[in-house]
Amino acid sequence: MRLKFLWPGKTKGPELRALQEFYAARIGTLAPLDIIETREARGVNEKHPEKIREMEGQGLEKHLKGVYSICLLDQGKEMTSREFARFIRGRDEELGKPLAFVVGGFLGLADGIVEKADARLSLSRLTLPHELCRVVLLEQVYRALTIIRGRQYAK
Amino acid sequence: MRLKFLWPGKTKGPELRALQEFYAARIGTLAPLDIIETREARGVNEKHPEKIREMEGQGLEKHLKGVYSICLLDQGKEMTSREFARFIRGRDEELGKPLAFVVGGFLGLADGIVEKADARLSLSRLTLPHELCRVVLLEQVYRALTIIRGRQYAK
Repeated sequence: MRLKFLWPGKTKGPELRALQEFYAARIGTLAPLDIIETREARGVNEKHPEKIREMEGQGLEKHLKGVYSICLLDQGKEMTSREFARFIRGRDEELGKPLAFVVGGFLGLADGIVEKADARLSLSRLTLPHELCRVVLLEQVYRALTIIRGRQYAK
Repeated sequence: MRLKFLWPGKTKGPELRALQEFYAARIGTLAPLDIIETREARGVNEKHPEKIREMEGQGLEKHLKGVYSICLLDQGKEMTSREFARFIRGRDEELGKPLAFVVGGFLGLADGIVEKADARLSLSRLTLPHELCRVVLLEQVYRALTIIRGRQYAK
């Protein structure tokens, strides 16, 4: 299983950044992964959110060729941790492509990215800050891999 | 609105602890709050999870008199952030009691605490680590207060 994690801009909160690295390292013991922090739209007025999402979408799109893309959205499909583990194992076995998880920036994902996504996933009905969302995603992917491989979840 | 947050044991992960303090301080600008970290069951073999939950439940119970208690559980009711804001505003206006959010320890909450709870809330269908759960809860309560008070969400 090859895993990609894509989002615009580096995770800035120092604690969330440390947690991101912690879970990425844990995942790395079980499967190869790349975290790709694409270009953020800077200097665009926040009154034009679509323009920001569009610009950031262009940066994300370059990395979405030949992958199975899973966008994270409030309105996506919710799963339990066990269902999520079955889902990623199933997609990996069936398709043999890298699984690419895509998380939006501060203003979310461009419509074009969401429309072309192979799957749409929601971590919660609650609206989470986008950097916290990245941490919850990585923790769940680590948890899913421990379920798939029958390993002890290392706290 | 008076808020209480109750859980057994101090949040140990240094990053999660810092995030807990960050969101508690943010909440504190909008409503008085107490975070009460009750006694953890130590020295009990993990083969006896019910005993651990029971012991920790006794520590929590002391703080649950005269409050409206909201237990966090995987199987609780899910809400959007706006629904959650309406829920806590509604309970506060209707009852005028402190709202006490109760999060379990590593092995979850005692059945007795869950059965006596006034409400059961789920942050996600996913199983989150209990310390991460505390951070997501605090962030959502802060978010809810900004919604209720019509304030800008301070990032």
